[in-house]
Amino acid sequence: MAKRSRFLQTPIEPFTIDSGLTADQVLARMERISFQGRNLATAHRVWQKMLKDDVTIFLGMAGALSAGGLRLVVAHLILHRYVDCLVSTGANLYHDLHETRGQRHYLGSPQADDAALAEDRIDRVYDTYASEEEFISNDNWIADFAATLQLRPYTTREFLYQLGRHLWETTQQDGILTAAYRANVPIFCPAIADSSIGMGLSQARQKTPNAGHIDIIGDIVESANLIIRRPRTASIVLGGGTPKNFINQASVQAEFYSDEVGGHRYALQIVTDQPAFGGASGSSLEEAQSWGKLATDSDRVSVQADATIALPLLTSALANTAAPTLATRKRPVFTLASRVMTVDGHDVSSERFEEVNESTV
Amino acid sequence: MAKRSRFLQTPIEPFTIDSGLTADQVLARMERISFQGRNLATAHRVWQKMLKDDVTIFLGMAGALSAGGLRLVVAHLILHRYVDCLVSTGANLYHDLHETRGQRHYLGSPQADDAALAEDRIDRVYDTYASEEEFISNDNWIADFAATLQLRPYTTREFLYQLGRHLWETTQQDGILTAAYRANVPIFCPAIADSSIGMGLSQARQKTPNAGHIDIIGDIVESANLIIRRPRTASIVLGGGTPKNFINQASVQAEFYSDEVGGHRYALQIVTDQPAFGGASGSSLEEAQSWGKLATDSDRVSVQADATIALPLLTSALANTAAPTLATRKRPVFTLASRVMTVDGHDVSSERFEEVNESTV
Amino acid sequence: MAKRSRFLQTPIEPFTIDSGLTADQVLARMERISFQGRNLATAHRVWQKMLKDDVTIFLGMAGALSAGGLRLVVAHLILHRYVDCLVSTGANLYHDLHETRGQRHYLGSPQADDAALAEDRIDRVYDTYASEEEFISNDNWIADFAATLQLRPYTTREFLYQLGRHLWETTQQDGILTAAYRANVPIFCPAIADSSIGMGLSQARQKTPNAGHIDIIGDIVESANLIIRRPRTASIVLGGGTPKNFINQASVQAEFYSDEVGGHRYALQIVTDQPAFGGASGSSLEEAQSWGKLATDSDRVSVQADATIALPLLTSALANTAAPTLATRKRPVFTLASRVMTVDGHDVSSERFEEVNESTV
Amino acid sequence: MAKRSRFLQTPIEPFTIDSGLTADQVLARMERISFQGRNLATAHRVWQKMLKDDVTIFLGMAGALSAGGLRLVVAHLILHRYVDCLVSTGANLYHDLHETRGQRHYLGSPQADDAALAEDRIDRVYDTYASEEEFISNDNWIADFAATLQLRPYTTREFLYQLGRHLWETTQQDGILTAAYRANVPIFCPAIADSSIGMGLSQARQKTPNAGHIDIIGDIVESANLIIRRPRTASIVLGGGTPKNFINQASVQAEFYSDEVGGHRYALQIVTDQPAFGGASGSSLEEAQSWGKLATDSDRVSVQADATIALPLLTSALANTAAPTLATRKRPVFTLASRVMTVDGHDVSSERFEEVNESTV
Repeated sequence: MAKRSRFLQTPIEPFTIDSGLTADQVLARMERISFQGRNLATAHRVWQKMLKDDVTIFLGMAGALSAGGLRLVVAHLILHRYVDCLVSTGANLYHDLHETRGQRHYLGSPQADDAALAEDRIDRVYDTYASEEEFISNDNWIADFAATLQLRPYTTREFLYQLGRHLWETTQQDGILTAAYRANVPIFCPAIADSSIGMGLSQARQKTPNAGHIDIIGDIVESANLIIRRPRTASIVLGGGTPKNFINQASVQAEFYSDEVGGHRYALQIVTDQPAFGGASGSSLEEAQSWGKLATDSDRVSVQADATIALPLLTSALANTAAPTLATRKRPVFTLASRVMTVDGHDVSSERFEEVNESTV
Repeated sequence: MAKRSRFLQTPIEPFTIDSGLTADQVLARMERISFQGRNLATAHRVWQKMLKDDVTIFLGMAGALSAGGLRLVVAHLILHRYVDCLVSTGANLYHDLHETRGQRHYLGSPQADDAALAEDRIDRVYDTYASEEEFISNDNWIADFAATLQLRPYTTREFLYQLGRHLWETTQQDGILTAAYRANVPIFCPAIADSSIGMGLSQARQKTPNAGHIDIIGDIVESANLIIRRPRTASIVLGGGTPKNFINQASVQAEFYSDEVGGHRYALQIVTDQPAFGGASGSSLEEAQSWGKLATDSDRVSVQADATIALPLLTSALANTAAPTLATRKRPVFTLASRVMTVDGHDVSSERFEEVNESTV
Repeated sequence: MAKRSRFLQTPIEPFTIDSGLTADQVLARMERISFQGRNLATAHRVWQKMLKDDVTIFLGMAGALSAGGLRLVVAHLILHRYVDCLVSTGANLYHDLHETRGQRHYLGSPQADDAALAEDRIDRVYDTYASEEEFISNDNWIADFAATLQLRPYTTREFLYQLGRHLWETTQQDGILTAAYRANVPIFCPAIADSSIGMGLSQARQKTPNAGHIDIIGDIVESANLIIRRPRTASIVLGGGTPKNFINQASVQAEFYSDEVGGHRYALQIVTDQPAFGGASGSSLEEAQSWGKLATDSDRVSVQADATIALPLLTSALANTAAPTLATRKRPVFTLASRVMTVDGHDVSSERFEEVNESTV
Repeated sequence: MAKRSRFLQTPIEPFTIDSGLTADQVLARMERISFQGRNLATAHRVWQKMLKDDVTIFLGMAGALSAGGLRLVVAHLILHRYVDCLVSTGANLYHDLHETRGQRHYLGSPQADDAALAEDRIDRVYDTYASEEEFISNDNWIADFAATLQLRPYTTREFLYQLGRHLWETTQQDGILTAAYRANVPIFCPAIADSSIGMGLSQARQKTPNAGHIDIIGDIVESANLIIRRPRTASIVLGGGTPKNFINQASVQAEFYSDEVGGHRYALQIVTDQPAFGGASGSSLEEAQSWGKLATDSDRVSVQADATIALPLLTSALANTAAPTLATRKRPVFTLASRVMTVDGHDVSSERFEEVNESTV
């Protein structure tokens, strides 16, 4: 046979079965298979690299992951600082709060009789049920809390820190909001108006006129300034949605004001949407390069999978492989209790962008 | 043969080909085929029913529809009042503004070399390109405009009305924002912070301290009050995302304060996500019933299709079939120029919910 | 602004709505939008080009299109020779035969109670029902017919021609099988064993020992020889599956024996699967180039859409735009009644490959 | 709060992270989360139940699993008799043979330059490459082998057993075909004509006139008789395609001739297609009940996931949890070397159906 093509370098190594394989061993054996299995194994490797590097790691979270049983996985990632900053949909924070407050979601069926559920005031999320009465009690609880805040706009970052504090002080229970409070990890929620947390905030106005003001434009400024302060970043995205874009937007926005920002150095996404319909949720990481959202030499991987399969496996593997790295990780230190947050001792304004270089804007 | 099963009532009528078929004739022949073709034909029929009934029709719009060439379809739907209220992602309004300002998107390839695009500062949306420089000029234009506004929070509804007016006065060009301005159709944008419109607003703070305040919680109150004022509603959703949920949330929220609200009477969605991963974008209209988002006897249809195929065909068909209905349609009359909008002459507060019955909250 | 990037050549032209648009006008206005709408418009153009060129056009057909109401569209494509050779799953031919024999499929619901359907012996295909008793009567009818054939292997092409003839002589009704018989268009069914037509053939053995022998390996030889005889080909694929691969395989196989074969000159696929899971149904046309299935300079387009939407629209458009081309089209002339088929007067063996050049095998 | 709704029975148990979790522990913690994670955990439980029951377990296999690195997982399932009968696409057997013969597939990229690959004669399967020359050598090897067989029709079951034997005798290497040969597990390949194994068979005719005759209709009879002999069955399907339907068809066909057959008692599918487009690959297991393919009280679960993620995890878990069950499992005993196979000492005809009860046909 003639000389080998340059394209034939590394053979596929078929996955072999043994008893007693741990999660990380399963992923290690997936590294040289194909398709999404390979991508998930690569995600494990990319995340490990992020942790060894000096980068601020953003985690974006969309889809019904909290209702669906992954809230303590995300809490674990926050508490052990596999990630430094959470960007979430409101629903994920709300369903987290629901359980942290001692209420539950329930196993259900996707073939349910929805009229019967409606009669019982049970809300369905695909194969998962919850009580509408309990949801209304959450809304009230949020409204009551929001009515105690100062009558001024809060960024979602500041509001959610205070909400996490209140929740921790009330419940002492683990969850995403309480983990972020305890670990001083900021949470942004750009679409908070599109969630039951927003509904709770809106109901605060019924109790206290002019309550429930959220400064989401301040979140844009603050998140960009965070990147201007620490220009090396990584992005981990579960499920697309507004968090995916918000993390990328922060990087693009920061680049307008600082030459040192050059897109995420690492990017990992676990999504179920596909690129062919043009939506942002399913957009490829290659496309993200064209926008400058990713450094063109970034380590990146996209996994086409349901996060309820991929994330438990991936995090269980990291719990084995990343422990030594986590112990020595260079991670940003935040203070979040005030209107102005800090990172590594520096103020992060929500009022105006830090201009490190001559602005291009 | 024994007596017919009750399940075998209406035979499939195979689609037959003739020359010269118009869009509505194509859809009429799809009514008795199967799968998504039948669903699209049913969508045509459901939309016609909405127009004949006395309902407020909400249109939700996510995905890259404006960049992808559907902005004048949506503008047509607004100008001719096939719909009464738009809920959109920021990106769709931004890419609309981009073209209304005389700039363009361009045919591209999904197999593009994204590093080369990045070098030329060309941003890619799947198979579509645009100039980053032009985008920066839009951001500036929005920032300049936002810096002229009063230093107080605006709901997105009020802000987008003013933006549409400014755009119309500047350009006299057709588009979504200008059509909504001219037709007095309100636009809500619950995730405005997650878009380049939000970025423009944030940059206004660089020009005028304390500019760019958006009251998204006010949007929640206002949208619910709109439904409390006119309790019979319909929902048309393109592509899921925050608009889909926001429209449903408004109905659920309104129901807390008014017994007359009972979920959308009609629901039509054109989505590419599927239900099996639990996300809201792909969630079924049956599931929506369990939440009270839809009346349990609602007319509803979900079409699994890319809106760039489904919407031009559907709207072209309606342009033939709905013209007489549109002429006599009972549609809500809005005023939008002020902090407090009105519908049919009544104020719609963004400060507190109208309580029509004893509140359940 | 600096000189224009080479990437910004052709602007998107937003779709505009007018009343009375015909199917081809709708597609013409989709040519310069984005995503799958653009792809469907391109499919229209690519098919027109095929018809003007001197190529043998293969149509592959998978998915439940016949049960789902598209059998008369396919029959139209065959009768008017938009295509020259059909490769189908057995199910599509079976459900076609079911209706040609005067029986029907019925409108149903995807939320049906399947246990209740099972009790009534109603079989469900997503939102479509049919009577199991009628299916059993089809199986018998096929078995009876197969038992009348000679006790020797038939290629599926020969068997299906005879089946089409028998069906036409019995019913005089339009359908895929009868259209192919009348238009002398060959049908291959490589997975006939995986269908109710195969079940009917197997039941023939109960009636006549040693009946129902199908020479599917002969189909491979025959389909490749067809391409060796007429090396310029085009491929139209609906829904992936075995037909997609069989058409490509015939081209690859033919290339082993003839230097003149160089992959399909045109390729058009309408699929719902995506490439990311590695399956052949969702594989891209770019990938097909690597295998030599497509000429590297082929005109090609892949549309991500349900065929029940895309095919009626596309065929209705072609009925307007392609009529003059069809009248003068250079199309292959087949005889199919015998064990050895002919094309343009030449025998097409199922016994051995024609070797036009020195074999590479 | 009022009495609990009947719908709220079993709470979701959020997944918790610990170090050192084995594959089966990961799945055990997924049992009470939601969406596809729950489904995969349920699949683990359903498979365990199958192994404890006295059922013939069919495994269907479509998609590029062998090329993609799962062939030794499937070989493991066969050798240790987690399954009793394999139904496969030809491609999976071919890519298995390719590696068993000492050749490899290679890591590649989905963004490859396919024209460059074509020039180097490298064939791409999404992110995986292989040498076309090596493929041609396989075709020849198969053709040479097929030319040594008797000049009579072989069922795919008989042919593949002989092919597995020849492969084992030549290579002594593990793989799907050699495992099935060594474990006396039958393989059916209903669409063998649509694969490179079929191409090899067709090329045998170039060497020996009238070679390469496959009796696929005999496969239908044989597979149904197998179920008539052992009426309790289970179905495990990876990826849909012809294997999924063939396994179901065998059950339906068997039911025509025996009252004791009542559909599969267990069904587990791991698919990436969705039901909404009507295709058989994505069809739901509920729908399968309407056809009598599944017993109405069957244990069943459908997992929407890429098999390259789901299968290694699931099989690694079973390697821990199912070992004791496997040791005592009641499994059918086959002889496969002859034209007439046997199960548990009884002949299984491919010539006519065994009629246990009065035929309904």
